[in-house]
Order: sequence, then structure tokens, then C-alpha cells
Amino acid sequence: MQWRELPAIYLEDPGSPVERSSYLIQLHTDDGGSYDVVNDASSPAARECCAQQSSARHNWEMNYQEAAIYLQEGENNDKFFTHPKNAKALAAYLFAHNHLFYLMELSTALLLLLLSLCEAPAVPMLRLGIFVHATLELFALIVVVFELSMKMRWLGFQTFIRHKRTMVKTCVLLVQFIEAIVVLVRQTSHVRITRALRCIFLVDCRYCGAVRRNLRQIFQSLPPFIDILLLLLFFMVIFAILGFYLFSPNHSDPYFNTLENSLVNLFVLLTTSNFPDVMMPSYARNPWSCVFFIVYLSIELYFIMNLLLAVVFDTFNDIEKRKFKSLLLHKRTAIQHAYRLLVTKQRPSGISFKHFEGLLRFYKPRMCARERYLTFKALNQSNTPLVSLKDFYNFYEVVGLKWKAKRNREHWFDDLPRTAFLIFKGINILVKSRVFQYTMYTVVAVNGIWILVETFMLQGGNFFSRNVPWSYVVFLTIYGVELLLKTTGLGPVEYLSSGWNLFDFSVTLFAFLGLMALAFDMEPFYFIVVLRPLQLLRLFKLKKRYRNVLDTMFELFPRMASLGLTLLIFYYCFAIVGMEFFAGVVYPNCCNTSTVADSYRWVNHTIGNKTVVEEGYYYLNNFDNILNSFVTLFELTVVNDWYIIMEGVTSQTTHWSRLYFMIFYIVTMVVMTIIVAFILDAFVFRMNYTRKNQDSEEDNGIVLEKEISKEEVIGIIELYKRTSAATETAQLQKIVLQMDKYGQMSMVFLGRRSRTKSDLSMKMYEEEIQEWYEEHSRKEESQTPLQEPASASSSSLKPLSLRQRSQTVI
Amino acid sequence: MQWRELPAIYLEDPGSPVERSSYLIQLHTDDGGSYDVVNDASSPAARECCAQQSSARHNWEMNYQEAAIYLQEGENNDKFFTHPKNAKALAAYLFAHNHLFYLMELSTALLLLLLSLCEAPAVPMLRLGIFVHATLELFALIVVVFELSMKMRWLGFQTFIRHKRTMVKTCVLLVQFIEAIVVLVRQTSHVRITRALRCIFLVDCRYCGAVRRNLRQIFQSLPPFIDILLLLLFFMVIFAILGFYLFSPNHSDPYFNTLENSLVNLFVLLTTSNFPDVMMPSYARNPWSCVFFIVYLSIELYFIMNLLLAVVFDTFNDIEKRKFKSLLLHKRTAIQHAYRLLVTKQRPSGISFKHFEGLLRFYKPRMCARERYLTFKALNQSNTPLVSLKDFYNFYEVVGLKWKAKRNREHWFDDLPRTAFLIFKGINILVKSRVFQYTMYTVVAVNGIWILVETFMLQGGNFFSRNVPWSYVVFLTIYGVELLLKTTGLGPVEYLSSGWNLFDFSVTLFAFLGLMALAFDMEPFYFIVVLRPLQLLRLFKLKKRYRNVLDTMFELFPRMASLGLTLLIFYYCFAIVGMEFFAGVVYPNCCNTSTVADSYRWVNHTIGNKTVVEEGYYYLNNFDNILNSFVTLFELTVVNDWYIIMEGVTSQTTHWSRLYFMIFYIVTMVVMTIIVAFILDAFVFRMNYTRKNQDSEEDNGIVLEKEISKEEVIGIIELYKRTSAATETAQLQKIVLQMDKYGQMSMVFLGRRSRTKSDLSMKMYEEEIQEWYEEHSRKEESQTPLQEPASASSSSLKPLSLRQRSQTVI
Repeated sequence: MQWRELPAIYLEDPGSPVERSSYLIQLHTDDGGSYDVVNDASSPAARECCAQQSSARHNWEMNYQEAAIYLQEGENNDKFFTHPKNAKALAAYLFAHNHLFYLMELSTALLLLLLSLCEAPAVPMLRLGIFVHATLELFALIVVVFELSMKMRWLGFQTFIRHKRTMVKTCVLLVQFIEAIVVLVRQTSHVRITRALRCIFLVDCRYCGAVRRNLRQIFQSLPPFIDILLLLLFFMVIFAILGFYLFSPNHSDPYFNTLENSLVNLFVLLTTSNFPDVMMPSYARNPWSCVFFIVYLSIELYFIMNLLLAVVFDTFNDIEKRKFKSLLLHKRTAIQHAYRLLVTKQRPSGISFKHFEGLLRFYKPRMCARERYLTFKALNQSNTPLVSLKDFYNFYEVVGLKWKAKRNREHWFDDLPRTAFLIFKGINILVKSRVFQYTMYTVVAVNGIWILVETFMLQGGNFFSRNVPWSYVVFLTIYGVELLLKTTGLGPVEYLSSGWNLFDFSVTLFAFLGLMALAFDMEPFYFIVVLRPLQLLRLFKLKKRYRNVLDTMFELFPRMASLGLTLLIFYYCFAIVGMEFFAGVVYPNCCNTSTVADSYRWVNHTIGNKTVVEEGYYYLNNFDNILNSFVTLFELTVVNDWYIIMEGVTSQTTHWSRLYFMIFYIVTMVVMTIIVAFILDAFVFRMNYTRKNQDSEEDNGIVLEKEISKEEVIGIIELYKRTSAATETAQLQKIVLQMDKYGQMSMVFLGRRSRTKSDLSMKMYEEEIQEWYEEHSRKEESQTPLQEPASASSSSLKPLSLRQRSQTVI
Repeated sequence: MQWRELPAIYLEDPGSPVERSSYLIQLHTDDGGSYDVVNDASSPAARECCAQQSSARHNWEMNYQEAAIYLQEGENNDKFFTHPKNAKALAAYLFAHNHLFYLMELSTALLLLLLSLCEAPAVPMLRLGIFVHATLELFALIVVVFELSMKMRWLGFQTFIRHKRTMVKTCVLLVQFIEAIVVLVRQTSHVRITRALRCIFLVDCRYCGAVRRNLRQIFQSLPPFIDILLLLLFFMVIFAILGFYLFSPNHSDPYFNTLENSLVNLFVLLTTSNFPDVMMPSYARNPWSCVFFIVYLSIELYFIMNLLLAVVFDTFNDIEKRKFKSLLLHKRTAIQHAYRLLVTKQRPSGISFKHFEGLLRFYKPRMCARERYLTFKALNQSNTPLVSLKDFYNFYEVVGLKWKAKRNREHWFDDLPRTAFLIFKGINILVKSRVFQYTMYTVVAVNGIWILVETFMLQGGNFFSRNVPWSYVVFLTIYGVELLLKTTGLGPVEYLSSGWNLFDFSVTLFAFLGLMALAFDMEPFYFIVVLRPLQLLRLFKLKKRYRNVLDTMFELFPRMASLGLTLLIFYYCFAIVGMEFFAGVVYPNCCNTSTVADSYRWVNHTIGNKTVVEEGYYYLNNFDNILNSFVTLFELTVVNDWYIIMEGVTSQTTHWSRLYFMIFYIVTMVVMTIIVAFILDAFVFRMNYTRKNQDSEEDNGIVLEKEISKEEVIGIIELYKRTSAATETAQLQKIVLQMDKYGQMSMVFLGRRSRTKSDLSMKMYEEEIQEWYEEHSRKEESQTPLQEPASASSSSLKPLSLRQRSQTVI
């Protein structure tokens, strides 16, 4: 009942804020210097509104903007000491914080990295003149200088110096600059290992935040990792000495004849790459010598290496949790900062919609008026028209929701005439039936076996025949009919909203393209035929565990990608170093004096009248250009037979080259162990979550339901009319019209977003989170006694309960 | 004060028990048939006491015995349906449950397993005639028949049939029997793959309970494992088809020319064993073909294989917890059963010492009277002389404690004269000082570097010189002095009670033996010189993490050993199968037509006047006898280059041989994954535990402190006098004398035992355990309404708090 009178309150004069925006203070203490709001992100309405320049309104606009900045900082995990402190800094901040600037950052970084494709030793097809690539480099570096100067303007010199990452970047920039100029002047490339440092430009990009986090996590996991690594190396040394004493009397054993060989071979044995071979000479002489190797492998490979994984897994887990905690508390502080800027002196207990709307105009300029109001209502858990701090803590969870009017119609064909309705209804029931599903699974399975048998019968030869095989047509027809039935039965929107259907659709489309390619003899499309077996992936829908695995995979995909990128960054560094030192050292028949000669041999025998080519192929694993280096490094990562590559290079250079390969092995071991730990952690976490919430039905994402009444909408329209925001008013008017059309007094909206790891963590650590908050607010209070008590009280930042009904009384 | 009058109560006439032993009921309903207590385990005192044959006493003796059996069943996790049900069964039970019988079980099982060393294809040195080994086998099988018949007598035919494991064993026994007789009659060995089943005799041994548990856990982890394995194989098939289509047009690529080859090579690629090689022919033709391999490895090796680990880890964890829960509840039920047999009708609220002592006489016959009383006191948490059910639940935690009188003297030399005391005190302080410790660490480190440098300087040649190197003497002297100082400063008992000191001691001893060997030219002792570097292990004491790792290792050792044994059992089965099929198929130059010919080549070139032997050595990896098979299987477990062994055997037999190797790979993958999961779980668990209990000081094991007064001891002596147990009385009298000597009215005893995984789990799941109990007792109540309420109340089975003081008032 109380709500009926509310609209009037939404329109109240804003009053004056409790706290003033720091820019504003700056502005007023300055000598009234003209200050232009250069906010690319703000909506035109906001700018128009600014133009009116009523003093109170201007005050509020500044507050909104600063609150929005605080919230952004909370979201991006930017520390508050980088918060822009005055109007000049604000301008620079706004300039440096939009997607255009970010894209420029990213593209210059990528350009710098890609330059190594063209610099000597270049990929043959992409070779550029020294003048050209050096000029390109200088240009990119100048852009970086510009970016840094913007950053300095925003941070101020003091903060700029204090910000470690930025300082490192500046130093690297300087070195690169000097080197680029040297190259330009000398017109020849010198040994430029520093190019490996170019990665820092990519790492520093706004879009690579996840990579930065990964790197930090890797470095944090290092201390315990190194401890265990030392244990590993220690045992290796002990066994090397033992092995040297035991096996060096055997002169037919080349693996232990010196202590250095003994050490190197035991290091390689740790990766199992030389396993039975390293044992064979001594085993042939005395069968009991296998005990040495079995004990070594049991201790090193099966015990300590697993211990390494355990330690990393544990540390990773711990860091993950602490990171989550600090992120959560950081967001909370950001929300507190924003809140203090948004409450009025008259009503210090909450934020009114007017101010909330002002905040959102800066925070998410693309949001429409309806969504703003729905977000406000979703936050507002009490019956009052104000959002309290307690409610406001949910800001980040709610603001990401995508709102849609809840459909009253169950099917897309409900409005059709009776006969059509019945037909479609029939199709709908058919399509949803178990029988239909299992028939389709059987068809897919039969198709799978068919393809397998067909391929098996081919046995090399004319499998790219010009005839379209009839089985292909039959199966494709069945899939086509299924697709048609499902689309008509469910409606295209519902059909495509399921990931699995989307997958079916694209596979069928690909298969159809393949058929076209076969039918019309289009050579370049032949490869699509090869995609046929992919249809078998449909079978995965059958089992719940697979669906779970795939869902988890999709949830983890961003994180996996960032880990992959992190690995690539390490690859890049090693590739540059490898190219500088080892480019061109291996070639066919290069290593005939080494122990791995066979793998590099390339001989053209003529036996009888036949030419037999004996190819060792390993000369292909070289560092001749960056692409080759990447492939070689991948082979080193896979570890098998890596010592052949190492020994090949070593035989052409010095013994010290082994250091490069061994360090690379250890680095990839760290990164791979962390990737394994991450996958382990994520899946175990997810499975625990599923076990904990077994009773709750399967759901895809977070869903929130809110109802808004006609009066409320009209109230908001009034509000927007006053600020003469035409587009918003029109949009809202449409809702009122729609309500009138269906004769409803209210309308239900659904807010939806996909679940993130953060949501899962919230649910998992539910109890602990409460403790953290209390501990945090106690700490805060002792630091800032002015903190209002509301924040100290128990917060509502529990994860949003699903389908939480609005408590609005109508 | 209440305690003062207690002794009288201990002596109370036992009264009659609430519940009668089931044997007793049997006995009385039988026609009074003579029933002999054949309990090898019971002490002579108990037997003497039995001889007196007062009816009530006899009743009680039976009750004690059955209660002890219940508790044993609880400890060994034997199901109660195998509980002996009558006097005849009891006799068989007692016969089949003592270490002599267990040892017989174990030795027959081992004999059967070891027979495969002597059966064709035998280890050359151990070959026995067919008549001999077949007779041995028959003998062992007859012993097993005897064991089984004892078991049937104890279980009864019905239960025997229901017991799955025993039934399987019986069937295997039957098959083995028939085969052994066939061998004896034909005087020649046929293909006896069934020998692989001999493992079941070992698995069924009482001492191999841990192996049984592991096997059960492995089988329970299988369903999710197989799911993910199918996913793995599915992708493999898809990629095999793709690879076949893409690469078979390249005729120089032998890896993908048929679908079968394509599949086999991708399977091998999954293990990375053929990695860069399998890619090379196509990579040489088109560099972009590396994408196929990179994608395949990323999906299969880096994603799905890790997923496999995650799933196994998760399942393993879950099973581990459930197992712990069921074990805990089983023990609880056992305790309840025992409790009901021990309370009297007059005092149903608890067990008096008299009855408790009777129980212990059967449960732990070797325990002395003092320990029995201390156990009773440790259990008794209340002020009454009776142990309630709630207290009795702690039985298993308390009964394992080893009791020792607490020393009043701080050092071993406290009683020595003044001068000696001061000297030893000085040594004591010196030895315990940080300076001394770090000096020793430095010495060890210097020694380590010395050894390294020395070995490095040797570079092959006369390192087994007859001269004792002076450095060796110097360092050994230092270690000797350290050992002497520590032994005198701390006293030999305290010195050797620390594991690290024990380690120091044995290493120094070994080094000394090595010196002796060097000095006296004893050839066979030369190997000890090789142990020198082991002294470096001392350095591990330096860091807390290493100490933690080592402690955890020791705690986990039994479990690790049982996992290793489980692996060996799998090895045995595969070794037998391998020997039956592949014995003698590989030999030097056997496989010259296959793709792996080089590895089996053995050529005697004569180049110029030098004879060069080109050895492929792989012919050594064969299945010619069981020891060779084990080594070959270990090489297959390590996985690297396993395909060379597989292809060698395949080229000599049929394509189907690959199945053996692939199945072996998958089986070891399961077992190794579970081992990894176990190590991971154990360490993560331990680290979490350490993190949770960071504040508590480092402790070695569970320690409990109890004080007993003189009156109490005298009371117990009275009790024993009545039952005329002379040895016990004498023992207790000694304590009284000791108290008199030092003029004490009471004496403090310390109970100690090492911490097990179960204790850690108790602490970790503290909260959940309470829930389980409540749930369990609710279930129990609904099943057996006669259950007394005491057990439903909250139990005291919290882990024993460390150094819990006795509440006795003196």
C-alpha cells in the first residue's frame, strides 16, 4: 500500500550530498577555472543535462561521476591510491579509461610482438627491410610513450613512481627505444635479447588483467615450489654421484662416464625421455642395476613430482581463496565509497532512485531507463523507496543482469489459428518426447559406426571420389528433418537458446556445406567432409556427467584461455632468446658427431634402381624463425624426446646451451603444474558444489524476477520529463502502452545472467564470507571512526537466491 | 574426596550381566556339552581363573570373550554377520584368528606366488623339475583347503556361501587344483593363464587388509573414470578418422596410412611416446599440419587427462570420507555390542573395573595390570567408578596408548655427583644450542660440496683407490664427535627417540663401515663408500617444510606400501599373462622387418681393425621369466618408448598383442592416477590440518597424562589377590614400593602413541562426525528400540585433547 504514494518521492528535489566529490572540492578551491566534462562514455542526455548548469545539479553530476569511478575501480580491482584526485587527473582518467584507448594499447602491444615475425631471423614470407621494421617499432614505441604520459597525467608523478608495474614498463620502454634507434642508425640488427621483454607491453594492457593475475599467482606459488624443486635436485645430485660411482667402470655405458653426463642424464630421466635406453647398458651387464633406476624413478618421478603437484595445488587453492576474499572486500569498500557520495544530507539512510539513476548514467551509459529502474528495484529489498547500504552491497551481482519482460505466452504459436496451433502443438510434444530423443541418439550412433566402417573399408585411395555417398545423403536428410521439426516445434528463439541445439545446428550446417562441396566438385571445400565425425559429439548429451564436464569447461573457458595466453607469453620470451642464440645451428646432417646423429641424418641412398630417402627430420625442430621456435618449444613442452633437440643444439654450440633447455623445462613444468592444479581445483570445486546442491534443479545461470506496476512506470516518466530526457521517456511510454494493451496493472521482468566462478565461490564460502566482512568492518572502523554504523551491521551480500520474488505490495 | 572410598567398589561382586554371551546361551540350551576354551591368546592367569568354574564367573568369562571378539571385529572392520554364533564356531574363530594362522595363510599365498619363479619359463637359476613344483603347488593348495574348511566351520555354510570373496577364492582354488593335477599327470606345463589368479590368495590374507581396501577403492573409482576414458577414446577415434583423411595421401607418412595405424599411433601419442616423430613426415610436407597435433595433445593430454585426474581425485576423496564414516560407525556399533555384554543388571549405567579388566584380558592378553588400570582411568571421564557408554566410545583411541611413568628427573645425569653433573649439563646445553646445530649444518654442507667437487675431479679411473682419503677421515671424526656429544648430553634413550637422530646415527655408522671397508680392503664392502652422499640428507632438518614433508611421508608410509603392493599384484597378473603369450618371442635381431628394427639390432661390425658392437638392447625387455617381465612392465609403466616394446612383440606375434599392452597402459594409468590422487589428497589434507592448527605447538603423537594414587593401586591389588593372579599382584606391588621410596602419594603416567590418519580425520571432520553419530543413532533406534538412550546422547568421541589432565581429586 505504501508504494502507491511513492512516485512523488522519486521526484523530490535531490537536496545536497553528504559528501562532496573530490573533483568538485578541487574545482571550487581552484580559481573557478573552466572545467569541461570530457566523458566519452556519458550519454547525450547526461551532457544535455549538464549544459543547464544549475549549481546543485552540477554538484550532483560530479558526485555521480566519482561514484561511478569508484565502482569501476572496485570491479577492475584497481587500487584506490590510483583514484584520480583532481579535475585534471579526472580528465586524463576518463581519456585513458575507454575501449578506444584500451584497443590502442592492445594493438600497439600486439604490433610490437608481431614485429618479431618480420625481424631477422624472419619468417621467409614476411621478411621486411630493417628500415621498415625499425620505423614501425619506433612508431609503436612512441604510441606507448603517449599512453604512459596520459597515465602519468592521471596518476600524478608521485603515484606513478610508486606503481611498480608502470615503472618496469617505463624502463623496458627506454631500453627498447635506444635499441630501435641503434638498429636504425647501424642499419643492421644486433643481438637483441631484450626483445623478449616486449611481452610486458601486452601484459600491461587493460584487457590482459587475467594474464596479470595468473602471473602474480604463479609468482606467489613459487616459494613452496622452489623448496620442493630443491629437494628434487638434491636427490638428483645424490643419485648422480651414486650412478657415477656404480656405472662409470662400465665403459660401454655412455650415460654415466662423467659426473656431468650423469647429472644431465638423470635430469632427462626425470622427464622419462631417455628411460629404457639410459638403463640398458648397465642392465645388459648386470640385471640388478635396474634397482637403481627403479628407486630413482619411484622417488623422483612418482613421489616428489607428485608432491610438487600437491604443494602447488594447495598453495594455488589457498591463494585463490585469499584472492577471492580480497577482491570481495575491495568491491565492498568501493561500494561504501560510492554510497557516501550518493546519499543526501536530508536522507542519510539510503539512495533514492534519482541519484541511483544518475550513477548508472555514468557507470553503464548504454543501459536503458527500464533496466535502470529494474536494477534499482532488484537492489531494494526493503519497503522504503531508498536503497540502504546493506542493499547496495549487492550492486555488482545485480547490475550485470539482463532484463526481459516475462512472456505470458508459453509457445511461439499460441496466437495462431486453431488448426495450425494443434499441428505445432503436436510437433512440440513430439520433439520434447523421450522417444524422439533416443531415436535421434540411435541415428547418431549408427551414423558414427557407419563412418567408422566406411573409413575402415577405404584403406587409402579414392576416398575423395566425385560421387556423393548415399549414406551421407540419408543421414543428412534425417538431421535436416530433425532440425526442421525442432525449429518449428520450439520456435527459433527457444531452439537456439540452448547451446546443444546451437551445436547441432552448426554441425548440420557444416555437413550440408560438405555435401554441397561434394556435389559441386568444389576443391577448396573438401576439407569439410573431414568434419563429418564431429557429429558424433552429439552423443555426449546422453550422460549427465558429460554435460557437467562440458558446462564446467565453458564456465572455465575464459580462465583457461588466459592461462594459455600466459604460457604463450613465456613461449615468446624463450622463442626470442632461442632465436638469438640458436637460429640456423641445426640443419640436415648437422650433428653426425653427436649421440643423436640418427635423428638429424638425411641421406639419399640408391639401392638397386630405387631411391631410398632416409630422413631424420629433427633438423625441422629449429629456432630459425619465431613460428618454428614456437613449434619447437611446444615439442619441448610435451617433453618426449626433448633431449634429442637439446643434444642436437648442444653439439653445434656449447655445453651451456643445455641450461636454456633445462630452464625451459622447469618453467613449463611450473606453468603446466599450475594449469593442472587449476583444472583440478576448478573441477573438484564444481563437483563439490554440485554435490552440495544436489537437490536444487539444474539451472542455467542466475535468474531474478521483479514486478513493476503501472504507477511506478508513470512516476519514472514524470521524473525523466523534468530532466527532459526524451528517449528515455518514449521508451517507458511504450511499456505503459503495452500494459494497457493487455489490460495489466503490472508487468513481470526476468533478470538473467550466466553464473561465474565468483558466484560459485560465494555459495561455497557462504559462512566464511560473513566472518571476513565482520573482521573487515571492525578493521575499517578502527581506521576510520567516521564510518557509519550501517556498514558494520551484518550485510546482505549473500548470493542472490534464485527466483527471488519482489516483496512489492500492489 | 569421593575417590577415597572407591577401592571398595572395585571389589564388588560382579553380579549378573544384563545380556548373556550368545555362546553361553548356546551352551546352556545345548545338552551341557563340554566346551573347551581354546584361546591361545588368553593369558595363563585367565585360564587358571577359568579352571575354578564358579558358574557366575564362567558366565562372565564368556561375556568377556564375546565382547573382546566384538571389539576385534570393530577394529578389523569385519562385518557382524560373520560373528561366530555358537560354541563350535567360536572354537574355529579362535583357531583362525591368531598370528600363527595368519602367518600360515600368508606363507602359503607367498609360496604359490613365488612358484612362478620356478615354473617354466623359469628364472634360470631357480628352475625346478615339473614334478617338484607341481607337488609343492598341490601341497600349498591343500593348506589353503584346510584354511577354507576352518573358515567354513566358523562362518557356517550359509554365511560362507554369502561371503563373496571367500566364494571366489574357493572357485579359484578348485581351478588351480584341477590344473595342478593335470600338470602332474601330463608331466608338462600347458598354457596356464589362470596362474594370474593366484593373487587372490594373497589378497585374502588377514595381513593384506589394506590391499583389499585399495582394490575396493579402485573399483569404486572406476565408473566415473570409465566415463572420462570413453570421452578420451571417443576423441581419439574422431582424430584418428580426421588424421587418416588428412595425412594418408602423403605416402612417406607411415603413421596414418591405414585407420588402424592411425588409431594405434594416436593412442601412443596420448602417452607422448612417439611425439615429435609421428608429426615429422606431415610437418616436413606442410608446416601447418602441426596444428592437428597441437590441438589433439591440448585436448587429450592437457585437458581430458587432467580431467581424469580431477575426477579420480574427487571420487577418491569422497570414498575416503565415506569409508572413514562407515568405519567410525562400525567401531561405534562394536563398542555398543561389547558394552551391553559388560554391564551388570545391578549397575546398568556403566562398566566396573573388574569387568573392564576381564575384557582386556581377552582383548589384549599382553597388557600388564598397571596398563589395564590406566586405560580404565583414561576412559573414565566422570567422577564415578563406572565407565559409561559415552566414555567407552573412546575405547579404540585409548587402548593403543603405551603407558610410562613420568620421569621426575629431567636429565639422565641428575643423580650423578656434582662435577660430573656440571660437565654433562654443559654438554647438554652445548648440544641443544643453536650455534652447535648450525655449525653441524655447515659441516654437512661443506662435506656435500667436498664430495661433489671430489667426484667431479675424479672423472673416471681410480676412484676405488686403496688409500683412505684424508677428507673422509676428517669429516667422519667430526660426525663421530657430534654423535658422542649428543649421546652423552641427552642420554642414549632421549637421543635415539628422535627419528632424525636415529638417521644421523645410522648414516654415521654406515660411513664408519665404509671407512673400515676402505682401510681393510674388503672388496664386498666397497658399495658402502657409495652411500657417502646420503649424509647430505641431514640438511633437510633445516627447513620446516621439509620436516613436514618427511613427517607426512612417514605417516603415509603404510598406506603407500599397500598401494605399491596393489600395483605389484596387478604386475603379477600381467606378468603371468605376458609370459604365457610372449615368452621367448624377442631376441637380438628379431624384428628386422618392423619399424622399430633399430632398437633390437645387435651387429658385430669390423671397421678397419676395430670391432664395433652396435647394440639395440631392447631385446632385453622381454617376458622370458617373471623377473624380466616385472622389469619390462615397469618400463611400460614409465611409458616412455613403450611402443618400441609393443611393436617388437607385435611384429613377432599378431596385431592383437597390442591389446595386451594397451590394456596394461590403461590399468596402470588407473592405478597411478589413484596413487597420485592419494598423495595429493594426503598432502593437501595434512597441509590443511597444519594450517588449521597453526597455533598448537609441534607435537609428535597423542599424549595423555594420568595420575594414580597409592590407595587406588592398593585397591586393585586386593582385587587381583581375590582372583589369585600372582604376576599382576607382584607387578602392582612394585609400584607401591616405588611410591614409598620417593615418599609420593601418587604417580603420574604418560600414555603415548603416534598419530594416525584416523586421528587427523577425526579432527578435520569434527563437526560432521557429530551429525553422523546423531543420524546413525536415530537409525539404530528405529531399528532396535531396545537401544539404551545413553548412546543416543551426544558422544564424547572427540579427539583426545593433548595433555589432558586427569580430574582426580587427591
